[in-house]
Amino acid sequence: MSVPTQFAGQAAMEKQNEESFDLKHYAYTPREFTEEDVVIKVECCGICGSDLHTITCGWMEHKNFPMIVGHEIVGQVVKAGKNTKHQVGDRIGFGAQCNSCMDCENCKAGHENYCVGTMVGTYNGPTGSDVQPYTQGGYADYYQGPGHFAVKIPEGIESTVAAPMLCAGVTVFAPLKRYGAGPGKKVGVIGIGGLGHLAIQFANALGAEAYAISHSDKKKADAESMGAKGFVSSGDKESTNAHKSSFDLIICTSYQEGMPLQEVYLPLLKPFGNMVVVGLPNSGVPAGGWALLGKSITGSLIGSPAELEEMFEVAVKHDVKTWVETRPMSEATQAVQDMHHGKARYRYVLTN
Amino acid sequence: MSVPTQFAGQAAMEKQNEESFDLKHYAYTPREFTEEDVVIKVECCGICGSDLHTITCGWMEHKNFPMIVGHEIVGQVVKAGKNTKHQVGDRIGFGAQCNSCMDCENCKAGHENYCVGTMVGTYNGPTGSDVQPYTQGGYADYYQGPGHFAVKIPEGIESTVAAPMLCAGVTVFAPLKRYGAGPGKKVGVIGIGGLGHLAIQFANALGAEAYAISHSDKKKADAESMGAKGFVSSGDKESTNAHKSSFDLIICTSYQEGMPLQEVYLPLLKPFGNMVVVGLPNSGVPAGGWALLGKSITGSLIGSPAELEEMFEVAVKHDVKTWVETRPMSEATQAVQDMHHGKARYRYVLTN
Repeated sequence: MSVPTQFAGQAAMEKQNEESFDLKHYAYTPREFTEEDVVIKVECCGICGSDLHTITCGWMEHKNFPMIVGHEIVGQVVKAGKNTKHQVGDRIGFGAQCNSCMDCENCKAGHENYCVGTMVGTYNGPTGSDVQPYTQGGYADYYQGPGHFAVKIPEGIESTVAAPMLCAGVTVFAPLKRYGAGPGKKVGVIGIGGLGHLAIQFANALGAEAYAISHSDKKKADAESMGAKGFVSSGDKESTNAHKSSFDLIICTSYQEGMPLQEVYLPLLKPFGNMVVVGLPNSGVPAGGWALLGKSITGSLIGSPAELEEMFEVAVKHDVKTWVETRPMSEATQAVQDMHHGKARYRYVLTN
Repeated sequence: MSVPTQFAGQAAMEKQNEESFDLKHYAYTPREFTEEDVVIKVECCGICGSDLHTITCGWMEHKNFPMIVGHEIVGQVVKAGKNTKHQVGDRIGFGAQCNSCMDCENCKAGHENYCVGTMVGTYNGPTGSDVQPYTQGGYADYYQGPGHFAVKIPEGIESTVAAPMLCAGVTVFAPLKRYGAGPGKKVGVIGIGGLGHLAIQFANALGAEAYAISHSDKKKADAESMGAKGFVSSGDKESTNAHKSSFDLIICTSYQEGMPLQEVYLPLLKPFGNMVVVGLPNSGVPAGGWALLGKSITGSLIGSPAELEEMFEVAVKHDVKTWVETRPMSEATQAVQDMHHGKARYRYVLTN
């Protein structure tokens, strides 16, 4: 198949103001193709909270503009290097990471997502090329990256449903699996959003009993539809007391500043229970005090290529489905704005 | 054997100023004896940092004065209730906990030290008795408490060596064991003091490789004598970089305010490594940020009666020894003052 010499997408031309996002059509020349690479024709791309953090420089200031974000990308392979496992015509996906050093102890152990050498994000990552010095993402027509970090999308799962799993899905799947979500375990999910609604489903898929933990009752009915066995209202003492010291594992998907870690979340855990934080507030996770005694707080960052593969197997087998609203790629600005205002139920996916 | 109607010890008669401790001889009538209780004639009692925190109201204000502290108590049973496993003449020890509700899920599971009902400290804990409404500790001639929380001291370990293990020892032994210190594991111990010097020895006894982590080189030779395989100077970038991402487990025994959690400690851990905090700074453990991704922070509180028993087995088998300086019980004030000034190498034990 033919591959254009320039790729084009919806770019933040400069640092964005979160009250008035403005993405514009922008074309760029991709860095040199290598035999480790694949090029995909983008079918669709999910909108992740990280996209907004990056174009507003919320986590850190950077000068990589124009910036095309998007790291939940599904498309068809149109060009495949000799050294990749993928074939032209395959339907594959890229998540939040597109490269790593492949040489450090973590990479060698299959924990590429904890690379301590050069970790490369699917966008806003270093390329080492003068042609295009930083990676451009998936709000675009084409995407090029090392095939090692792409995963085949299994039949039986629609592209738009699969796309958000490439980041949101594996971000919750990896710690659920690692920290023992399974039969006989009570798992709490803080925050019912893009990550949370997948966490509830994956926790159940792995055999655990999933409970939704949210500050208000607004999403209670939705949480039940997702399969939550119960609902804990984190602002209501009666509700939290009823579940005190009962959770084996809590996945915190909420980015809230000043979260009630000591007052509410840690006391919900059993002794030796673990709360895994997958959304970092800008101010960090609050300080741990007495409530931390006998409990753990863990941070977790996306997942490895192997975890992506395993996640899709579980998703197909147990019919885990992202709740998706599709939006045309050309209307990315409005979709990003709506995402910022918390309107997604529960994930927007841009389609070409 | 005869038991006096009053017990006497070295008491803080009022809230203490840490620049001029002043303990005075004080006699009290113990609460009513029950068939669950034992009374021991105190042979010796270690001085723990918690003793100082309690009599200065460092952790929290309280009005339980006069207060006899001390919760690393070894002595001979002089009276034993029908419902205890101990016999008159046995040499036993009490650690930091002397009672719990025995009815909550944690107590029933053998995690009495994480009781969510009524947790009773060996001193400054509620007794429910009008005769003596709060527990008085081991800087004294006699101690009375429920036999369930006392452990037999095995032959082959001296009383003064055993005493500090009842709190300092089990506080590090329990998390070392729980979080997998064993063959093939690299374990770091932050802080070379009363807890740290036992942590190094117990980590090695369990088959792990123990490393000392300290802000200065002052105690390097001591750490090597304790069995540390290496030394990490936490203020020296070259030293910390050499051990980056290499520890499976770190036990933090230091109470330092503003510890360099993000900058130094968490980066020393491997992915999925765990840092266990056994000394809480008054300000809590600092907030976790990006460095927490893929790592855990855990809090741990003393140990259960079963863990005390297992610890002493390991100590005898592997010749783990507290480094002790004995001081006469009557000179408790000066010993406490010296402890406050960090002079202990590495634990003071008061002897009758």
